[in-house]
Amino acid sequence: MAVSSRLDESTPTTTVADAARSIAADATVAVSGFGRVGYPKAIPGALAQSDRDLSLTVVSGGSVGDAIDTDLVEADAIDRRYPFVATQAMRDAINDGSVAFADRHIAGLADEIEFGGLPDVDVAIVEAVAVGDDWLIPSTSLGPTPAAVAAADEVIVEVNQAQPLELQRIHDVFRRERPPDRGPIPLTDVDGRIGNGRIEFPAEKLRAVVRTRKRDDPYTFRDPTTAEDDIAANLIDFLESEVETNPLFAESLTLQFGVGSVGNALMSGIRDAGFDDVDLRYFGEVVQDGLLDLLDDDLLDGASATSLALSTEGQDRLFENIDRYAEDIVLRPSAISNDASLIDRFGVVAVNSALSVDLTGNVNSTHIGGSNLVNGIGGSGDFNRHGAISIVALPSTAAGGDISRIVPVAEHVDHTEHDVDVVITEHGVADLRGRTPRERAALLREQCADPNYREELRAYVRRTQDSGGHVPYDLDALVAWKD
Amino acid sequence: MAVSSRLDESTPTTTVADAARSIAADATVAVSGFGRVGYPKAIPGALAQSDRDLSLTVVSGGSVGDAIDTDLVEADAIDRRYPFVATQAMRDAINDGSVAFADRHIAGLADEIEFGGLPDVDVAIVEAVAVGDDWLIPSTSLGPTPAAVAAADEVIVEVNQAQPLELQRIHDVFRRERPPDRGPIPLTDVDGRIGNGRIEFPAEKLRAVVRTRKRDDPYTFRDPTTAEDDIAANLIDFLESEVETNPLFAESLTLQFGVGSVGNALMSGIRDAGFDDVDLRYFGEVVQDGLLDLLDDDLLDGASATSLALSTEGQDRLFENIDRYAEDIVLRPSAISNDASLIDRFGVVAVNSALSVDLTGNVNSTHIGGSNLVNGIGGSGDFNRHGAISIVALPSTAAGGDISRIVPVAEHVDHTEHDVDVVITEHGVADLRGRTPRERAALLREQCADPNYREELRAYVRRTQDSGGHVPYDLDALVAWKD
Repeated sequence: MAVSSRLDESTPTTTVADAARSIAADATVAVSGFGRVGYPKAIPGALAQSDRDLSLTVVSGGSVGDAIDTDLVEADAIDRRYPFVATQAMRDAINDGSVAFADRHIAGLADEIEFGGLPDVDVAIVEAVAVGDDWLIPSTSLGPTPAAVAAADEVIVEVNQAQPLELQRIHDVFRRERPPDRGPIPLTDVDGRIGNGRIEFPAEKLRAVVRTRKRDDPYTFRDPTTAEDDIAANLIDFLESEVETNPLFAESLTLQFGVGSVGNALMSGIRDAGFDDVDLRYFGEVVQDGLLDLLDDDLLDGASATSLALSTEGQDRLFENIDRYAEDIVLRPSAISNDASLIDRFGVVAVNSALSVDLTGNVNSTHIGGSNLVNGIGGSGDFNRHGAISIVALPSTAAGGDISRIVPVAEHVDHTEHDVDVVITEHGVADLRGRTPRERAALLREQCADPNYREELRAYVRRTQDSGGHVPYDLDALVAWKD
Repeated sequence: MAVSSRLDESTPTTTVADAARSIAADATVAVSGFGRVGYPKAIPGALAQSDRDLSLTVVSGGSVGDAIDTDLVEADAIDRRYPFVATQAMRDAINDGSVAFADRHIAGLADEIEFGGLPDVDVAIVEAVAVGDDWLIPSTSLGPTPAAVAAADEVIVEVNQAQPLELQRIHDVFRRERPPDRGPIPLTDVDGRIGNGRIEFPAEKLRAVVRTRKRDDPYTFRDPTTAEDDIAANLIDFLESEVETNPLFAESLTLQFGVGSVGNALMSGIRDAGFDDVDLRYFGEVVQDGLLDLLDDDLLDGASATSLALSTEGQDRLFENIDRYAEDIVLRPSAISNDASLIDRFGVVAVNSALSVDLTGNVNSTHIGGSNLVNGIGGSGDFNRHGAISIVALPSTAAGGDISRIVPVAEHVDHTEHDVDVVITEHGVADLRGRTPRERAALLREQCADPNYREELRAYVRRTQDSGGHVPYDLDALVAWKD
């Protein structure tokens, strides 16, 4: 049943200031938002500008914009934050200890919000394109919002009139029962639909509705570097070889990859490669401009995600051609977009970046020097763990070549050697499947590391041979590498 | 359709020696067996005694007995080995580099065998209780055998007349399609049945059938130590508190735990605690004597596993009362027993041991000193990752107190901080859910570490504070701890 107006006549609205004031100073607040879109923009701003002494716990679905992760941080209003961040202000606050943070997998977040593991949610603040007494239609991202609304004592809705009502046609809200009664997720196609376009809740939970009119900050993209182009070219070569030889991909290839320059270079590469012999699909977290291009060119059969990470041009293109795109694009709750059984079921080839990879294939996605948080693990663990093939794609060096991203030992491990199949840099491809730790070390060093670091990595491995053992590990040799 | 004879009249048998001779010297051999039961005992023994120069690759489901992992090792007949081992001979061979080994998750193993990731299987050697032209009934474990039979060019069957035919009533062989067409697993109850008791294959694959008569080596159990009893008591207290307060366990509690003294102490504790208000179920890898006791006492509603790890008395009890036990006990392929979506669906509370846990919750299950393999990750990663609550239970020290198992930094990470909810030692319980790295460090140090090591662990954390950051990590401080 399509909705044609933003608000039921019976739904009273309030001012942003009043809505903000209704939130307790030490509340646990769940906000909508994923991939820096679809998050509430007005009420967090009002909270940041208030002169109240706030100590909020903020739970989002993924990254949100400055209204939450900059303005509220600078106002010293956030005590605790889950599960992923992407602003410098929040990163700094977490690393200097002024905001308490725990880094969580995206797939499991909805259950943690609803069934325990994270603090009980007092109020959910949700950006919507329309709202009624006991329902809302989310805007440009879904994330764990259905679970947050279910878990929250109260719901506050920002009806954002700058977001098109047509978004209701993109959403597929499917709610799972509580274990042990939840049963299987009945999704059989990447772009299939098993729910509807709205989130429902008991009417008594609706605490306030405010009207806003502010678009998401659009994504902007820089041109890929030479190294990124080379990574994408190696990735395309690898995918072409798999499609040619691996029976899993005889008829279709379902990819997941993240936002960013490598993703963009990959999508360009896909356009050039064509992959004419297989049905190409996307099952991941974010719909990006490049996916719209692939759909326009009939190179992509369908895209499933939980967020629309688009440029201004991409937003306009999607919203103005919603009839066409709504057939192939589905936004799902993150508990569905990142679900282990669906990633497995569709045989997803997962492509994720990393800060560094160690010689046996352990991956650090989150903490520089083992200690300083960058953003968080996000969905990388969901896809790396359950993909039919999990690929980590990264430049071989950082800091203009001064730091090797292929390291002897990961100082923080987000994805273990058990969960990484293939590593790709601008220099080549290390296919680690079925390989022993020492074989992996040789492949990563000789195929993926920057040539300038290969001799030092060889020296590390030689030193570990004195201590023997299955995994090339030696703490003294690690100290020597760091010096 | 029940089978009443071991062999069809039309099925020719051969000698063990002939069957062994038919295997190429450099073959990739998949053997049945999981939890040291249900593995082929005769043909590996004949291979070990032959004077051929063998360089086999051996893939099992889990641990197997001495015929494979001692005799063949001592005969220098194995070049490569996947994915888990449990004998000293194999452990030594892997650690000195004479056998190449890769440590894999159990849940994913069947797909790796069938769809790529591991070497192509030339021959599957399967212990069975009965065989026909194009089917066999497995013996005391299932593991990835259905996938191994599907992947193998040839199948050799050891019909073990010492294993009762009644085992057919315990098995539930369910085969999944290849992605992306595999659909959901239609299991809705822990002890439900979705397949049948036999593994089918094209008749032309059956290379040889041999008759054997040798029981599995029975499990023997030592009495739990005081520390293990205390761990179990802390675990029972934690579970009782969850059952009382957590809506997930309002009606049922489904547990997974492994074989061993802590598991035995836990089962004793469950008998004493009763858990009368909830339906108690087991969804794990191994059926143990203690589970039979709980079933006998009507304290357990059902048990799903992939292997029967029983004492002689337990084997006799099960086989002599098969009518009764077959109602409540199901053996499944390991791709089902360890499946992510089922562990999630049933809200399994997972209890697994570890070698060590670091201060932020990273767990080392496999490698002493970061380098020397003990057994392998087995299914611990499947259950830790997907359990509704994942509990790591371990003594606080090793080597009679000379080594702390709560360490500053895990030197090998099998389960990351993202996948461990609760740590339990004889000293107490650290509930890490929703906690930041520094909060986790304090909980693990003060609740779980041996009091003799707490001051050193505090000193480590203090030193990391100089370098700042989100995670308490400092390489120099780690070196100081090791000294």
